[in-house]
Amino acid sequence: MNMQKLGAEFIGTAFLLIGVVGSGIMAQTLTDDTALALLANAIATGCTLYFIITILGPVSGAHFNPVVTLAFAIKGDHPWPLAVAYIPVQIIGAILGVWLCHVMFDLSVLQFSTTDRTGAHQWTSEIFATFGLLFVIMGGLRSNAAAVPTLVALYITGAYWFTSSTSFANPAVTIARMFSDTFAGINPAHVSGFILAQLVGLFVALAVLPLLFGPAKDGAD
Amino acid sequence: MNMQKLGAEFIGTAFLLIGVVGSGIMAQTLTDDTALALLANAIATGCTLYFIITILGPVSGAHFNPVVTLAFAIKGDHPWPLAVAYIPVQIIGAILGVWLCHVMFDLSVLQFSTTDRTGAHQWTSEIFATFGLLFVIMGGLRSNAAAVPTLVALYITGAYWFTSSTSFANPAVTIARMFSDTFAGINPAHVSGFILAQLVGLFVALAVLPLLFGPAKDGAD
Amino acid sequence: MNMQKLGAEFIGTAFLLIGVVGSGIMAQTLTDDTALALLANAIATGCTLYFIITILGPVSGAHFNPVVTLAFAIKGDHPWPLAVAYIPVQIIGAILGVWLCHVMFDLSVLQFSTTDRTGAHQWTSEIFATFGLLFVIMGGLRSNAAAVPTLVALYITGAYWFTSSTSFANPAVTIARMFSDTFAGINPAHVSGFILAQLVGLFVALAVLPLLFGPAKDGAD
Amino acid sequence: MNMQKLGAEFIGTAFLLIGVVGSGIMAQTLTDDTALALLANAIATGCTLYFIITILGPVSGAHFNPVVTLAFAIKGDHPWPLAVAYIPVQIIGAILGVWLCHVMFDLSVLQFSTTDRTGAHQWTSEIFATFGLLFVIMGGLRSNAAAVPTLVALYITGAYWFTSSTSFANPAVTIARMFSDTFAGINPAHVSGFILAQLVGLFVALAVLPLLFGPAKDGAD
Repeated sequence: MNMQKLGAEFIGTAFLLIGVVGSGIMAQTLTDDTALALLANAIATGCTLYFIITILGPVSGAHFNPVVTLAFAIKGDHPWPLAVAYIPVQIIGAILGVWLCHVMFDLSVLQFSTTDRTGAHQWTSEIFATFGLLFVIMGGLRSNAAAVPTLVALYITGAYWFTSSTSFANPAVTIARMFSDTFAGINPAHVSGFILAQLVGLFVALAVLPLLFGPAKDGAD
Repeated sequence: MNMQKLGAEFIGTAFLLIGVVGSGIMAQTLTDDTALALLANAIATGCTLYFIITILGPVSGAHFNPVVTLAFAIKGDHPWPLAVAYIPVQIIGAILGVWLCHVMFDLSVLQFSTTDRTGAHQWTSEIFATFGLLFVIMGGLRSNAAAVPTLVALYITGAYWFTSSTSFANPAVTIARMFSDTFAGINPAHVSGFILAQLVGLFVALAVLPLLFGPAKDGAD
Repeated sequence: MNMQKLGAEFIGTAFLLIGVVGSGIMAQTLTDDTALALLANAIATGCTLYFIITILGPVSGAHFNPVVTLAFAIKGDHPWPLAVAYIPVQIIGAILGVWLCHVMFDLSVLQFSTTDRTGAHQWTSEIFATFGLLFVIMGGLRSNAAAVPTLVALYITGAYWFTSSTSFANPAVTIARMFSDTFAGINPAHVSGFILAQLVGLFVALAVLPLLFGPAKDGAD
Repeated sequence: MNMQKLGAEFIGTAFLLIGVVGSGIMAQTLTDDTALALLANAIATGCTLYFIITILGPVSGAHFNPVVTLAFAIKGDHPWPLAVAYIPVQIIGAILGVWLCHVMFDLSVLQFSTTDRTGAHQWTSEIFATFGLLFVIMGGLRSNAAAVPTLVALYITGAYWFTSSTSFANPAVTIARMFSDTFAGINPAHVSGFILAQLVGLFVALAVLPLLFGPAKDGAD
């Protein structure tokens, strides 16, 4: 059972990175218009999120994101030992997804990004983006659980545009994207700032969301 | 209970403005093609409407718009004291959303738009856009209430394109957008014309829609 | 009851033309790239079809198209007297939609298109597009009636791209679009060719679809 | 019964190729920006997949793809004699769809593509794309069977962008696309490499997916 859950987190996070990084490579290759590249990137990412969450949700919960796993564990909705196992599997799946992506686009497998993504406005964006992602997941589970795949997909498609960081909102994704010197990359020097901001966003969400949606019922959401 | 409702209207309207204004800033920064910028803006706005209405609908009704609140209050479906509380909260949430957006994009927080949006054709557009929004909400509640988030999202995505004003259709949104001298802004001098047109659209809808859908049943919709 | 049905066909067809013609005007104004204009036009048209069919389906059946009305009447699923009333209402609603659109974009109300749309390849496209529309409606009613608004919306969004005529597939739409010398217009001299092709598509569909889906059950679909 | 199934596979695969090839021709005609052409192509293909699978699923299972038919036959979910009949019908429907498409766009009916699509990175893409398609179909049938049309449509829309081959993932589609020297074409010399890669993807999926989703229940999925 747990091996299937870990396998689902692995393959889902790998798919997510292939969706994000691969569509960025394709778009950047085909156009000089960065808005058009971002539009293709956002749409392909939304499509990918929709299918991985729909299909793997019943298997593993479809976290694909250490912040999401931590949020459920802290709320008592996900066992801590499983959370501790999920996070490295998500990170490894993400990195292998990026590398497979490089193979599929005939690029050097091992790369390090040179794209700067730093500064208070980008960190504010990541705090907000992560808060928003948890707002959508926790709120969606209460209002319309069947809509969660669509909610997350459309949230991220929108958030690519309405934050200056393009909403990584995911430490596994952030780590993996430093291994690609392409459209979606992030300079390794700027990874820790993003992850710290994502953790701040997690704690803001844990503080604010219960006020908005009411306390969890008996520890279960 | 009412504090949760007001909190939901506050956060939802803030999210809406971040979606509208943020995606406009990002798009305008990345491309010179205004149609492409409007496409990204329309898609990001539709995505935002979908998730805020789905998630906050069960909490506050997900109005995020004084015209919608007034329509429900006039029809007897929303208590007047709550309506009177909703409207300022929507306006404050909208303005704070714009300001947070400026922080996330490293822009001056306090700005005033210099984008002219005036003239009989734009006011006609706002009358029509507001009528259309209420047509979609009131009609959607009768035909398929579960589809209302999708209906509103796709209505506005389309209406960005089929009206010359790009369909503000919302006084809180109109007021807040005068505080951003970016893609989505509106010259403060032209705000009152837009709001007046939106109120005309409200009364046209209240007059026409009952003929189309039949009278409300026992004052409830 | 019938006045509501006719009102729904009137307002729905007017909305459809505003969606089609308005988004074409906006797109053409904002970009020189015709593919981008068509993409915006196709997306806005799909959005419009989704909300008018969802909302007005329970009122009038949401035909908005003489070919659809004729198909249901010939199959015995729609009374002939009502069909005879629907068709002129659809045409008048379509034309008034175009004219309101011109008002909203500050253009001369009365215009005649100078866009040539003729030739065997365009007529073949209209035959195929109309067959496809009826395939989607009749097939959708059998396979998943709740999905018909989405099916028609996505069919037309796709068919804008996969036929050389951009899939008018609707005599009321064809007549109304001759009154707009903008992106979506059609030279009045070429209207009869399109309508004839649409009628051929109707008869092809009536001949082929029962073979594919089996005979109607007791005359009802 | 079987004639209806074969008719559905024929017409559905023809529609699929019209969606893929037609939208490619239209896009290439209207713009010089290849990313914009691919975006239109991907959206139109997704729209087409959604309506053909929704409508024809209850008739034939809506395979439209020899690899999908083989996967179901090997798993014991589709009778072998029917599988043997499906595959040639899919190929013939696909080719006739391309030819009808050429008629609709006023091009020579018989063409052979000169677009090179070859190399280890493209074959890796096709292995992955085919694995992904079966992941989405088999996984979707277990997690949310009603969502399969949306899952496949969004998977392919995304996969156009996240693989270097643009995800043919279908031998019938691959064969038919060699008959069009337009945006979607493939040099006949490179068809066998793609098909071989798709078959490898099929066997990878048959080996990996049961580990992820658990064994089939009583031979039925």
